[in-house]
Amino acid sequence: MLIVADNLHVIRPEIARALASMDPGPIQALVRQCAQAGAQAIDLNCGPLKRDPETRMTFLVETVRAVTDLPLLLDTTNPAALAAGLAACGGRATINGFSLEPAKLEGILPLARRYETDIVGYLLHPDSRVPHETDEMMALAVSLFEAYRALDLDPARLIIDPVIAPLAWPDGTRHNRAVLALIHQLPDLLGTPVRTMAGLSNLASGAMPLTRKITLEQAFLPMLAAAGLDLLLVNVTHGPTLDTARLCAGLLGEGVFAWGPT
Amino acid sequence: MLIVADNLHVIRPEIARALASMDPGPIQALVRQCAQAGAQAIDLNCGPLKRDPETRMTFLVETVRAVTDLPLLLDTTNPAALAAGLAACGGRATINGFSLEPAKLEGILPLARRYETDIVGYLLHPDSRVPHETDEMMALAVSLFEAYRALDLDPARLIIDPVIAPLAWPDGTRHNRAVLALIHQLPDLLGTPVRTMAGLSNLASGAMPLTRKITLEQAFLPMLAAAGLDLLLVNVTHGPTLDTARLCAGLLGEGVFAWGPT
Repeated sequence: MLIVADNLHVIRPEIARALASMDPGPIQALVRQCAQAGAQAIDLNCGPLKRDPETRMTFLVETVRAVTDLPLLLDTTNPAALAAGLAACGGRATINGFSLEPAKLEGILPLARRYETDIVGYLLHPDSRVPHETDEMMALAVSLFEAYRALDLDPARLIIDPVIAPLAWPDGTRHNRAVLALIHQLPDLLGTPVRTMAGLSNLASGAMPLTRKITLEQAFLPMLAAAGLDLLLVNVTHGPTLDTARLCAGLLGEGVFAWGPT
Repeated sequence: MLIVADNLHVIRPEIARALASMDPGPIQALVRQCAQAGAQAIDLNCGPLKRDPETRMTFLVETVRAVTDLPLLLDTTNPAALAAGLAACGGRATINGFSLEPAKLEGILPLARRYETDIVGYLLHPDSRVPHETDEMMALAVSLFEAYRALDLDPARLIIDPVIAPLAWPDGTRHNRAVLALIHQLPDLLGTPVRTMAGLSNLASGAMPLTRKITLEQAFLPMLAAAGLDLLLVNVTHGPTLDTARLCAGLLGEGVFAWGPT
């Protein structure tokens, strides 16, 4: 299970300011902190980047690349920004991500073909609604896989994210049980071992004490790991959560962490 | 997931002494401690009871019954002791347990029929060897289920324990991965939702710091819970482990804990 830091996010004011003013300092400080905390890859969540998308994404990728060789995920809904970011790192990044939304299928998925990269596909309805039942998620996974294969792309480069729901949602618990079942059954469903990713920070989002967040993460993470999760998107400053992730890898007998198609 | 205390064990010197001298004090103190810590059932592990098995088991059951109404598991390899214990509580206990060993099939399994009780069946070879592969465990589960059904017993009263291995064993990790797969696949394999039990204390047995034991238990427990485990045999004085067990029940949407055939 690969540990991907979700910390570099435009929702953080210092990151938003650094992106707006093209100031590498705060970004590089955060990247170093993530690497030190145990991140094995870093998600660069820069939002839609409405102003100067190419310039800002190029700046972001070069700024991060200057201080780390860790694999990167480029996390934006802006195709122009994605293309610029992929060009800036010679295509050595994962696109995060597409879904069955028409704009994503048309604007983002073709970039995975053009740059021959890994890409994350989210299990969302074409109108962005979140599915709650395992059957519904499975139908979306089949449609997503078909849309992906329609471009003649390699199944080994697809990463499916079934979208963890906040427990605070009325049907959050039921939804997350369905996520576990989906991850477990996906290889059989698609007939090929497509990788999976999940964003653990969603689970305990909202106002609650940090210790409670971490305890919830520590309880759900082993369930995800045992279901066969490949990439864990997580706040890497949650030390006990990362300890649990490493223990899970040991308990599940993962000799080495894998990245990319093997 | 029902929390069963494994604390009342003849391996503890004060319990061995109390049983030998028929002194109810230490036994009742421990039972009260387990109930307070969150035990929802108590395993009475009194060993083979070679001397005065009927008298001592009757004493043990009556001593425990005097201070708690929690469900009991009678954990001995001695059929005479089991019969006396079951008689002492009017058959209101679970037999723990039998296996494919001829002595268990002949001496213990028939007691489940005579007293109409739940019974735990261990996945061990007839010569008591521990299986390590999922396929091997599955074959043993089928044989055990057939032996159980041959006495025309109710599948809803059978609890299968696939035997967690110590991580210190050379193949402990692989074994415990097979245990998870077995628990997950058992209902499909047998075509009926037979319950499962696992003894978590086995995982981190041997010399290691208590905090390390608890951390390992906390990482493996959610995997067991997500696989569908019904009864968790556990040291209930490990507070964080019990907290995790309760969180797992919440995350998996268990509204109420169930006991016995439903």
